[in-house]
Amino acid sequence: MSISDVKIILVEPAGPLNVGSVARVMKNFGLNQLILVNPQCDRLGDEAKLMAVRARDILETAVLVETLPQALQGCRHAIATTGTDHDLNVPLESPRTALPWLLESAGQPAALIFGREDRGLTNQELNYAQRFVRIPSSNEYTSLNLASAVGVCCYELAQSIANTDDSPAIQNTDQENQLAPLDVVESYYQQLESLLLDIGFLYPHTASSRMEKFRQLYNRAQLRTHELSMLRGILRQLRWSLRNKNNQQDL
Amino acid sequence: MSISDVKIILVEPAGPLNVGSVARVMKNFGLNQLILVNPQCDRLGDEAKLMAVRARDILETAVLVETLPQALQGCRHAIATTGTDHDLNVPLESPRTALPWLLESAGQPAALIFGREDRGLTNQELNYAQRFVRIPSSNEYTSLNLASAVGVCCYELAQSIANTDDSPAIQNTDQENQLAPLDVVESYYQQLESLLLDIGFLYPHTASSRMEKFRQLYNRAQLRTHELSMLRGILRQLRWSLRNKNNQQDL
Repeated sequence: MSISDVKIILVEPAGPLNVGSVARVMKNFGLNQLILVNPQCDRLGDEAKLMAVRARDILETAVLVETLPQALQGCRHAIATTGTDHDLNVPLESPRTALPWLLESAGQPAALIFGREDRGLTNQELNYAQRFVRIPSSNEYTSLNLASAVGVCCYELAQSIANTDDSPAIQNTDQENQLAPLDVVESYYQQLESLLLDIGFLYPHTASSRMEKFRQLYNRAQLRTHELSMLRGILRQLRWSLRNKNNQQDL
Repeated sequence: MSISDVKIILVEPAGPLNVGSVARVMKNFGLNQLILVNPQCDRLGDEAKLMAVRARDILETAVLVETLPQALQGCRHAIATTGTDHDLNVPLESPRTALPWLLESAGQPAALIFGREDRGLTNQELNYAQRFVRIPSSNEYTSLNLASAVGVCCYELAQSIANTDDSPAIQNTDQENQLAPLDVVESYYQQLESLLLDIGFLYPHTASSRMEKFRQLYNRAQLRTHELSMLRGILRQLRWSLRNKNNQQDL
C-alpha cells in the first residue's frame, strides 16, 4: 500500500493559512487526498494559496463533505488525532507507534483525522476512529498548530515507509480476516441501536451516549469482516425471533 | 543535557508568519532559544504574533545577530539543514539519525541551523556546521515550508529524548474501567450461547466453534467491567422481550 492511499481529513478547519500549509506539507511527504468536513474558510482564497505554494493542486482537488462519516466512506482504517486527554478511556498512542498501521489497510483507503484548531474533535467524532494518536509535546505548551500536527504525522508516515522498504509489511490477503469496512460497521451500529430501543434496553434520550460505549468496545476489537457478518446475522435472527415469538415455547 | 539547550538559528528569515510558527512549534517541543541572523521581517509584528499564539515570549526573547558565526558563539555541536544536494561532498543524514547528537553536547549549547525560505544556506554557511540534515521528502515537491521543517526537527529531537526515558505505562485505577474478571466473562459467554441456541442462530453441533469467534473478538477488545455489565443487561432485556413478545407491537 502506498502513502498516497492515506487521506487527510480536516474537520471544520477555520484558518485558510493552515489549510494551505497542510496542502503543502502533504505534498512534501507524498500524500495528495485532502478531505474537508464542513470547512469554515475558503480553501481557494489568497491566504490558502499563499501557503500552499506548489501544492495548489491539492487544494483544488480537495473533497468537501458535510459530516465525518461521509469523509470516511470506503475507508478501512481510521486514526483520529487529539491534543488532550479525553474521557474516552482509550489508549492514546504516539504517531510512531500507531501511524504505520494506516499503511496496512490492504489496498483500501485509510484516513487520518484532525479536529478544529480551537476545540479539536468531539467525543462523538473521535469514536468514528479505531485508534487515537497524540503528538507528545511539552507541558509548557501542548497545543500544536494544525499544520504542524499534520506535518509531523505525514513525516512519520513517510518515515515508516522508508524504514520498512526492505521488509514488506505483512499483508493480510484473507478477505474474511480483513478489517470490516467502516461504513458497514456504521450501519451495524444503526441496526443495533434500533433493536436495543425496540426491546427497551435503550431510551431515546440516552441512546447515543450508550451507543458510544459500544463503539469504543468494538473499535478496540477492530472488527473483522467475518465477525461483522456474524454480529449482523445475530441481529437478523433476533428480529425474526421477536416477530415470531408464538412459535417458540422454550425461551 | 536538556532539549532546551538546543538553539534554533534562522538565517535571514523573510516571512513573519514563518517566524511566528517556528516560535510556537519550538515551545510545543520544549525548545526556547531562538536566534535570528539578519532577519528580513519583523519578529514582533502582528503576523508573527498571530502564528506564535502562546509562544510570543520566544519571539520577544529571540536574539538578533548579524552573522551566522555570531549566532554559533559558544556552541559545541552544530547541525545545518538543507533541502537540496549541495556540492559539498558531505553526507546528508536524516533527522532521526543525526539530531540526537545535538543532545550529546556535554552541557554546552548546541545549534540547529535553518536557511532562507527561498535559497536555503550558502555553501559558506553550511561549512560552519559539523553535520548536515535533509528531511526526506517526495520527489514531487521537495521544498518544505520553513516552519514545517523546524517542526519536524524539533519533534524528532523531542522523540529522541522520549525514547531514552522510561515512559511509565498509563495506569488505570478507575474500578469500572478495569478489565472484567475472567469468570464473569465466562458466565456471560454461557448465557450468550444459550440465547443464541434458543433463537436458532447457533446449532448444538456447531455452537462451540462459533462461540470461539466471540471469544476471540471480545478477548481482543479486553472487556471492561462496565462494558460487561452492559452486555449482560442486554441479554436480560432480550430474554424479557422474547418472553413478552405480545406486549410489543412495533418490532
